[in-house]
Amino acid sequence: MLEKLKDYLAREIPLINAVLAKEIASLPPSILEVAQHVLNAGGKRLRPFLVLLMARALGYAKEDVYPLACALEIFHSATLIHDDVLDEAELRRGQTASHIQFGNKRAILAGDGLLALGNLIVARYNNPLLTQVVSEAILATAYGEIEEIAFSKNKIDKETYFRIISGKTAYLIQAACECGAILSGSEDLVLAAKSYGFNLGVAFQLIDDVLDYTQSHEIMGKPQLGDLREGKITLPLIYYVETLSLAEQEEFWEKFFSFSFEEEELEEILLTIKEKEISERVKTEAKAYLDKARKSLEAFPESKEKEILNSILTYIVEREK
Amino acid sequence: MLEKLKDYLAREIPLINAVLAKEIASLPPSILEVAQHVLNAGGKRLRPFLVLLMARALGYAKEDVYPLACALEIFHSATLIHDDVLDEAELRRGQTASHIQFGNKRAILAGDGLLALGNLIVARYNNPLLTQVVSEAILATAYGEIEEIAFSKNKIDKETYFRIISGKTAYLIQAACECGAILSGSEDLVLAAKSYGFNLGVAFQLIDDVLDYTQSHEIMGKPQLGDLREGKITLPLIYYVETLSLAEQEEFWEKFFSFSFEEEELEEILLTIKEKEISERVKTEAKAYLDKARKSLEAFPESKEKEILNSILTYIVEREK
Repeated sequence: MLEKLKDYLAREIPLINAVLAKEIASLPPSILEVAQHVLNAGGKRLRPFLVLLMARALGYAKEDVYPLACALEIFHSATLIHDDVLDEAELRRGQTASHIQFGNKRAILAGDGLLALGNLIVARYNNPLLTQVVSEAILATAYGEIEEIAFSKNKIDKETYFRIISGKTAYLIQAACECGAILSGSEDLVLAAKSYGFNLGVAFQLIDDVLDYTQSHEIMGKPQLGDLREGKITLPLIYYVETLSLAEQEEFWEKFFSFSFEEEELEEILLTIKEKEISERVKTEAKAYLDKARKSLEAFPESKEKEILNSILTYIVEREK
Repeated sequence: MLEKLKDYLAREIPLINAVLAKEIASLPPSILEVAQHVLNAGGKRLRPFLVLLMARALGYAKEDVYPLACALEIFHSATLIHDDVLDEAELRRGQTASHIQFGNKRAILAGDGLLALGNLIVARYNNPLLTQVVSEAILATAYGEIEEIAFSKNKIDKETYFRIISGKTAYLIQAACECGAILSGSEDLVLAAKSYGFNLGVAFQLIDDVLDYTQSHEIMGKPQLGDLREGKITLPLIYYVETLSLAEQEEFWEKFFSFSFEEEELEEILLTIKEKEISERVKTEAKAYLDKARKSLEAFPESKEKEILNSILTYIVEREK
């Protein structure tokens, strides 16, 4: 089943990349350079791919779906550029983060420019609903990021964690699916597309947060335990803390908020996460979201793209980066 | 003539502010607080006022012009918030800049959120041309800012200066006028509205740059010689340098780029600018732009709002802050 997904991707990614290159070509050189740095570093192109698949699964065959798909990747890149400034991240997709390469100022302004470019592309479709959907998603993304930062000096519970990842990840993925469905004109399936996207997005972030504790630096293209080092509390960490006694928990949080762990303490955290099967526990939660996404697809007519949308749900939990 | 402008403003500003407060009320609290900090600090509301006037001057009497007008102020606030982060400015409109008050991270994300909110409001008008106009302006504003930063370690000539101020100021003011005209449906006068806005915008920034050398800290609500202190080369400074011998110029630039002026040297610069009537020279250039703006209005039908649009051109050069 994943073979079909891989074939589809192998055919579509070059087309997406070609349109992306064309769409950003009109940017002023100083913004273009930052955009190319981020976009040429790879990335899964999940969001544009979802726009394509959704539109086609709902019967839209026109070629003009590509720029809309690319707009979603452009919005995503803009948020990544701003995120990296905020997180003071050094690496992104295995290469120097853009604010390190070009300086904070250019990175912030390039992000603003890319947000504007995305809106320009979306405006060409003559459908203000598309602009509304992407703008709501960008607002939600900014809010998710703010919440993440606001809580970075506090212990958070599961509920807050889920609110944060919905904001910072799920809503833009939801918007990608919604845009594809809106473009197709199948009004009665827009809600199903939205639900597929939201649940996929939450699961995607859950797995991302697991990978931070299980995958090596080489595979991820960013430092292992990056979230822990940045003081980000994610679900694997919340579950890890639950394995500690109250006294241990207190000691842990003290070290966490000052990031004063010794290397062997970090090793021990990783070991506990492995031994207590915390990854599996988080993956089980991710699968519950993926099941909801799968259910949302049931209303869709049968098509090759529906199959691919289903296999993405399988890929999400099995992926290694 | 300015009396009518003042009366009109006195009536409209509270209405604009009420709609602004209503439009931002839906923001998440952590973004709302930053937005209120910036918007409640005052500001001339030039951009929303221009949207109103343009729409009405072209026969549009409906009340729904207010949210569109406010969207332009929201975009402007977003760019101000990001600018202040970039410039490391401490004051804005006489109060603590928002990145100092709330931290860089929240300021950057609040700016992103406000850009998205502005787009949401504009999308409600069901006219993608409006989204296109504001997005192009925001892209141009980001580019103007990047150019300003890129050149901040270099001497710039008049041509570069004009390109920078067109980007960072004139295009958003142009967009305000264009949006008002588009909303009115008077397609044949959109170009005239655009030209009025662009020329007004350039003149506005020229006068702003003059005021930085002539007005006191108390009146401006930000430090005197702020531009010089931030290493910004503006037209008054370009003209000041022209009064120096080549040897003096070299010495000046050296001190300028390291900002190693003594207080008495700064006094002397201010004195020369006064004695050589440099403000007057820049004001004369500003007036040439205002004349072009006035010419663009000639095609407009007679109305109270046309009168006010004309008197804004007079106000721009006479304003003291």
